[in-house]
Amino acid sequence: MTRPDLGFPTVGVVGGGQLARMLQQPATALGIGLRVLADSFEDSAAQVIRDVVVGDYRDEATLEKFASTCDVVTFDHEHVPIEHLRRLEQSGQIVHPGSAALVHAQDKGVMRERLQRLAVPTPLWRRVRDVDDVLQFAQQSGSWPVVLKATRGGYDGKGVWLVHSAEQAAEVLAHDQVPGFLVEQHVEFTRELSSIVARSPSGQAVAYPLVETVQEDGVCRQVYAPAPHSTPTQAGSAQSIALRLAGELDVVGLLAVELFETSDGLLVNERAMRPHNSGHWSIDGSVTSQFENHLRAVLDLPLGDPSATAEHAVMVNVLGGDLDDIYPAYLHCMARDPDLKIHMYGKAVKPGRKIGHVTVVGTAFSQLRERALHAAAYLRGDIDE
Amino acid sequence: MTRPDLGFPTVGVVGGGQLARMLQQPATALGIGLRVLADSFEDSAAQVIRDVVVGDYRDEATLEKFASTCDVVTFDHEHVPIEHLRRLEQSGQIVHPGSAALVHAQDKGVMRERLQRLAVPTPLWRRVRDVDDVLQFAQQSGSWPVVLKATRGGYDGKGVWLVHSAEQAAEVLAHDQVPGFLVEQHVEFTRELSSIVARSPSGQAVAYPLVETVQEDGVCRQVYAPAPHSTPTQAGSAQSIALRLAGELDVVGLLAVELFETSDGLLVNERAMRPHNSGHWSIDGSVTSQFENHLRAVLDLPLGDPSATAEHAVMVNVLGGDLDDIYPAYLHCMARDPDLKIHMYGKAVKPGRKIGHVTVVGTAFSQLRERALHAAAYLRGDIDE
Repeated sequence: MTRPDLGFPTVGVVGGGQLARMLQQPATALGIGLRVLADSFEDSAAQVIRDVVVGDYRDEATLEKFASTCDVVTFDHEHVPIEHLRRLEQSGQIVHPGSAALVHAQDKGVMRERLQRLAVPTPLWRRVRDVDDVLQFAQQSGSWPVVLKATRGGYDGKGVWLVHSAEQAAEVLAHDQVPGFLVEQHVEFTRELSSIVARSPSGQAVAYPLVETVQEDGVCRQVYAPAPHSTPTQAGSAQSIALRLAGELDVVGLLAVELFETSDGLLVNERAMRPHNSGHWSIDGSVTSQFENHLRAVLDLPLGDPSATAEHAVMVNVLGGDLDDIYPAYLHCMARDPDLKIHMYGKAVKPGRKIGHVTVVGTAFSQLRERALHAAAYLRGDIDE
Repeated sequence: MTRPDLGFPTVGVVGGGQLARMLQQPATALGIGLRVLADSFEDSAAQVIRDVVVGDYRDEATLEKFASTCDVVTFDHEHVPIEHLRRLEQSGQIVHPGSAALVHAQDKGVMRERLQRLAVPTPLWRRVRDVDDVLQFAQQSGSWPVVLKATRGGYDGKGVWLVHSAEQAAEVLAHDQVPGFLVEQHVEFTRELSSIVARSPSGQAVAYPLVETVQEDGVCRQVYAPAPHSTPTQAGSAQSIALRLAGELDVVGLLAVELFETSDGLLVNERAMRPHNSGHWSIDGSVTSQFENHLRAVLDLPLGDPSATAEHAVMVNVLGGDLDDIYPAYLHCMARDPDLKIHMYGKAVKPGRKIGHVTVVGTAFSQLRERALHAAAYLRGDIDE
């Protein structure tokens, strides 16, 4: 790399997925250097970012060497071994979010214990070792089904099982490669919400508008920003939880807090300490996207305004479907809707894989939703008119 | 380069300046491949775009080899020898804009002759060989000063001379490395305007809102979008001229038409067939930026909506000034104005050099203007409070 030294820092991103890819756009605008540690030159981010190191982030020497060339290290995913990060920090490397925060995002049990101490409302839960623990929990909490979760490594519905009986629980617990399990109450929610905040090392923090997320099979499919019909009280409450958590856990960068809306109020579900699918709408729908604010936060730059620029934004994920060659469908979508914002991740189509997303912004919510859903379905090959 | 083949085309850009750099952001979002032929790996675009070829665009073999790896060739600047492009086209390479259009952008005399035939209103002008030609023109058109222009190679005020006498004209004409000159009436204008249109090979075209540009010493300093107090008639008239010219000259990609507003109406001044400084506001202020629509146009993809997303946008160029190390100033600007959009080009500071731009969008024009001017002056080092 031969970027001239203009006194602008370089952010190193561990992981070459679409989140790293979408960091590139604000990094380029801001004149910030961006370096990616990717698994392969074909990774989504590695295809478009100038400065790519290919290597295994689980290998401590590789990680250390990569970090030594960056002013700050941040993440596309949450799978980097915490022990590696602790030693990087001890050697003076700036890592954001830091290992002390990140351990909460990596281990669902650790996070829940912390939430409990902070008296943040969550579904009932407990760590489990065997079927008896699950049975006991189901009896105490009142009913089946219950939700079993691997404490580590889950994403997009992976590592989460809805079980209706002791037999089903036993089957899940037999996955002996899973490092640990917890059981959780199956919450009857009215809808799912997500609150994203950005926080810098100096403690400045901003909250994005509260959004509604629509999940199918544990995978985020749609995001409505702001969450329709959400009261200022509800939005404020969700944002307060996220801001408080970011402060208590000393998160630097983004924190996304997923919530259940129930008849009794909000319960915190999961969290992520990185750009989050529920914030992709902000690229086209807010003054400062979540990606730009993540960069600003980890560099301790003043944060940008997270406000929405239009009354409504609707984001729909494009999942891989039956259509292999999506370029003709993509032309159709552009022709049908000149206001549609298409984002492709450079990923080959595989069934169910997130290969892109579309966003529309404007005033008439139901029309925006129809347009975004149509485009995503067309790109997936579900419809052809 | 190891971009997986997903059936998406690759656009080759000749030239590695900030215009190529700003093409990267929509290319990444659209999943389009972007390949740049740059002078050096330190070029503004080469710093951030994955796929860079370093070579001399004036060398036909280099250009040909580069083009052969791209689905379509387009340009960051207008200096590629037309003969090279003609031969590329003859060999079947797609070049947009094509040589037959581009010759008008390269040669101010050829363009003026064409405009004359099309009866498009322009300042009075003629080609000149010697001082007598200039004298005669000044007498016929009524007064000094007059404007001398090199027919080729000028930009940002270079190749343009305001002369007040035959002696001054003689001095300019003594530049024997200039391939040719024309003389032009010195127009008393009330302000300068610019109309940008995008046009695809299939003839689809869209027009951006008419903007006002503020120039100093021939260099664009500010852009107001839309042009304040412009009537729909004036905007429509300017857009019609640009759309008609794009069609008549068979421009594919962007055409920027700079105009003088005079008491007698609009006069066409200069033109460019590429993304233009007067369209940078569209990155943050329109549904589809000029850069995205340039890519869509050259790929014959349906064009995006060029509409503004807010009532007003103000863009101010950041020129190199006294400040070498601008990072501290940049922090200050972010802290002062969380809604400011900063775009840095990765270029070392040199006096007068365009090193970036800032944009603000919103409703209160005079406040937007104050904020953008303040940020640009601060980044330049002109003010420190």
